[in-house]
Amino acid sequence: MSKYVIGIDFGTLSGRALLMDAESGTEIAESTAEYAHGVMDVTLPSGKRLPPNYALQHPADYLEVLSSTVGEVIKSSGVDTADIVGFGIDFTSCTLIPVDESMQPLCFKEKYIDEPHAYVKLWKHHGAQPEADEITALAKARNEKWLPFFGGRLSSEWVLPKVLEILHDAPEIYGDTYRFIEAGEWLTYLLCGDEIHNPNFAGFKNLWTKEYGFPSDDFFSALDPRLSGIVGTKLPADICRINDVAGALNENGARMTGLKVGTTLALPIIDAHSAIPALNMVRDGDMTLTIGTSSGYMLNTAKAITVEGICATVGDGLFDGLYTHEAGQSAVGDIFAWFVNNCVPEGYETEAKEKGVSIHKLLREKAKALKPGESGLLALDWHNGNRSVLDNGDLSGLILGLTLQTRPEEIYRALIESVAFGTKVIFDRFEETGANIKNVCAAGGIAQKDEMMMQIYADVLNRPIRIAGTKQACARGAAIMATVAAGCYPDLVSACDALAIPDYCVYYPVDENRKAYEKLFAEYKMLHDYFGTGVNKVMERLTEMKRNI
Amino acid sequence: MSKYVIGIDFGTLSGRALLMDAESGTEIAESTAEYAHGVMDVTLPSGKRLPPNYALQHPADYLEVLSSTVGEVIKSSGVDTADIVGFGIDFTSCTLIPVDESMQPLCFKEKYIDEPHAYVKLWKHHGAQPEADEITALAKARNEKWLPFFGGRLSSEWVLPKVLEILHDAPEIYGDTYRFIEAGEWLTYLLCGDEIHNPNFAGFKNLWTKEYGFPSDDFFSALDPRLSGIVGTKLPADICRINDVAGALNENGARMTGLKVGTTLALPIIDAHSAIPALNMVRDGDMTLTIGTSSGYMLNTAKAITVEGICATVGDGLFDGLYTHEAGQSAVGDIFAWFVNNCVPEGYETEAKEKGVSIHKLLREKAKALKPGESGLLALDWHNGNRSVLDNGDLSGLILGLTLQTRPEEIYRALIESVAFGTKVIFDRFEETGANIKNVCAAGGIAQKDEMMMQIYADVLNRPIRIAGTKQACARGAAIMATVAAGCYPDLVSACDALAIPDYCVYYPVDENRKAYEKLFAEYKMLHDYFGTGVNKVMERLTEMKRNI
Repeated sequence: MSKYVIGIDFGTLSGRALLMDAESGTEIAESTAEYAHGVMDVTLPSGKRLPPNYALQHPADYLEVLSSTVGEVIKSSGVDTADIVGFGIDFTSCTLIPVDESMQPLCFKEKYIDEPHAYVKLWKHHGAQPEADEITALAKARNEKWLPFFGGRLSSEWVLPKVLEILHDAPEIYGDTYRFIEAGEWLTYLLCGDEIHNPNFAGFKNLWTKEYGFPSDDFFSALDPRLSGIVGTKLPADICRINDVAGALNENGARMTGLKVGTTLALPIIDAHSAIPALNMVRDGDMTLTIGTSSGYMLNTAKAITVEGICATVGDGLFDGLYTHEAGQSAVGDIFAWFVNNCVPEGYETEAKEKGVSIHKLLREKAKALKPGESGLLALDWHNGNRSVLDNGDLSGLILGLTLQTRPEEIYRALIESVAFGTKVIFDRFEETGANIKNVCAAGGIAQKDEMMMQIYADVLNRPIRIAGTKQACARGAAIMATVAAGCYPDLVSACDALAIPDYCVYYPVDENRKAYEKLFAEYKMLHDYFGTGVNKVMERLTEMKRNI
Repeated sequence: MSKYVIGIDFGTLSGRALLMDAESGTEIAESTAEYAHGVMDVTLPSGKRLPPNYALQHPADYLEVLSSTVGEVIKSSGVDTADIVGFGIDFTSCTLIPVDESMQPLCFKEKYIDEPHAYVKLWKHHGAQPEADEITALAKARNEKWLPFFGGRLSSEWVLPKVLEILHDAPEIYGDTYRFIEAGEWLTYLLCGDEIHNPNFAGFKNLWTKEYGFPSDDFFSALDPRLSGIVGTKLPADICRINDVAGALNENGARMTGLKVGTTLALPIIDAHSAIPALNMVRDGDMTLTIGTSSGYMLNTAKAITVEGICATVGDGLFDGLYTHEAGQSAVGDIFAWFVNNCVPEGYETEAKEKGVSIHKLLREKAKALKPGESGLLALDWHNGNRSVLDNGDLSGLILGLTLQTRPEEIYRALIESVAFGTKVIFDRFEETGANIKNVCAAGGIAQKDEMMMQIYADVLNRPIRIAGTKQACARGAAIMATVAAGCYPDLVSACDALAIPDYCVYYPVDENRKAYEKLFAEYKMLHDYFGTGVNKVMERLTEMKRNI
């Protein structure tokens, strides 16, 4: 008799449940549901307007999506819930909820219904940039030994800047908060009744390191005396091991999911990280790419290295005994979407309609006919700033080489090439710091759909690029976590080996292209350093000027 | 009884005749006709394909346009030809015809009908770039004293590179050529039967200077021994004074135009220069802008100065006793046309149709609402290379500051601003070299039509910009030349004063905009120097790479 697990992936706009055979790895059923409130970046549900750069969510949406998608996969698969032995969750992060002592989100309270700071701050809430800058400056000044593990600079998306933003802007809410908790860990609490915090969230988003634990209370006090003692009160102090189990579904959890009381619950992990076990990228030198609207680059190393300009490095952060490093590009698919929405002429739209293809597909067909260097164009992929390795949101996109003969497909291709060059900068930075990237596998919609782009990645990076065989990398990773928690496998690596699936395909570098891209990358790198490392701060000055209009 | 003159403007695609009252300056009638063969840049009339960068014309077209347009203004005005006292011509330049001893174009001969080099080489024929480079290198090596008068570098559009191209590629045609003659001067010969060559064409396009005459025969011999003795044979040696008269219509000229035998014929001048008398910009410090697909900047100075990177400086080249300097931008309207054809999304086209306005007008309306600096964008206007002050066709366009929020009208405005910044670089170069720009007047379609652009010019240049009151600046200039030749006025300056017309309007700098543009121009200049003066030759390298595909 087969055993099954369910993994559920909580993304930015929707959640997706996957019911999987725990032994064969066969994907039996899946179900997706969108969050009713989506991303609240203009108004609260009450209609109250939000400041710019806000991105909030409503925690009730998560509960609805949990119930409906899990219920749906159970129903559509016809599997007996007695045979579902494990349940796993991945979640966007840092997606932070202020809760009271009964673990109720403050935004559920009548008095806070109109108060933005009582809601979930989604990972891409960017209201806390001044706080991130303040924390970075203090850590640098104090020469905090944990800072190099975070690339030398805090992201405004992380826990502490978001908490400090609330302390600054809504001290009453700060006071009323019992715990600032990751949404994935809040859901875990609701399902099993125990609060458990793990190194994946704590390490990648809350300054925890294997080496030093959390920053010292002295540091928090120096930041703001009101933060003294925060670790162990409003922020959790105890961090479990990554191969622990979260618990088992209690009656509340069973009611919410339709699963049996006692079903094993795996530790929740960060959504992008969940692709790593799904792709079986669990060894030293494995580099997982997730390529979507933005992109994430996760590398495991056996060696303890820290890498300048890389978002975070966490020992035992996903695999016991390995360091996992996370880097990223802040816009990838978003750049192409911007281009298609703003820069493609009417004639192309007409042509795409006549051919019955999407405008992206038409542009790809035309761009594919071009050779590297043929357009004379070169771009910088900083339309949403640069996350790695420059970590500067005030940088901006550039295109150079325009002539009166320049065609839209040439610009489109130059944008794709620029993203690949940006990836190479990240790879080079890892390798210069002593990492050895042995194996590259890509997941995400673009990876399977865009042949031309993946070939350009292979040519630019001059290495084979494997494309993952699953379209559900995140939910599948959560399901694999569940198989280990349920004891189907002795450990995560064994589970990943057993449940590994064949590649969708592999792209190999083409020598002629590689040579041309070597030249073009040298030009890219020169512009990257000129505009990105402070030689000419024109992009920052223009952004500042725009802000002051 | 009134007296009248006719001016005829031979442009790139068409000719336009204007019949004007010689005393009041009233424009009585006009007529336009297109050249039947237009610009031949793909094939000859026989269907023979042309190499890239060629731009030829058929001289028969000029004769047809001359007859039809002059005939039409005489007819439609009802003026008695006995009252038409003068006739003037302006012509594109250097637009060069190889002719035989009877002044017949070689392309009229049966044996040369399939030979590109026997046709008119239009000003924008760019087949002679290698020759231009070769001549510049030799002149630099020999430290030729005339070189600074031409900005330190020859344009491939000028006489000598075009002649050398024929010598290299078609030596038989070179051998059969009696004279290489400007189309404007060829037409003058046909009309009055005398060959006369003037300092306007010779100075601005054929290396003649008031100070030194033509380059020495020693220089021509060093360039190619076969060129020895060319001045005085295949190239004219004798250059008249700019205030001489070309002659009087002979029987042939009378037959071709329908005018009386004996009608005075003024010296032909270069089309862009013809705007200068029309705008009464005839004094020291007067700067005439002609803004169209590309742009020309003509400044008079009393002082003998040479300006690095400026196309040409000619003493007595248009006004006796003044130096006239010509600079230019190789693409202006062409950049906006490129943008509209390649980069504007379908939704904007739909909106323009719904509002019943042109897409340019819609973009201008949207762009007008933006403040300087609001978009965060900065562009370099080098989509067709840079003519002044860098004189480098391998430079290319750039745009910087792009974000996921960037809108088409923001890019459109940034392109307009970049052209204005390019203009300021030219103005600054003149003033740094000791010129004093006292008075600026603009002519050309864009000047009257695009309020936003002209306001940006005023703000960026921080000086009032007058807009000419005539839409026929070139033909009017030719007509004014005819009034002087006919003796209606003692000299050109008196004629221009008497015939001056009120401005269409004047744009004055707005202080708030001026301040913002000062900052933006500083950024533009830094990029201009970084990419344009050899610090980072990425644009040249990308152009070279493109050429080698």
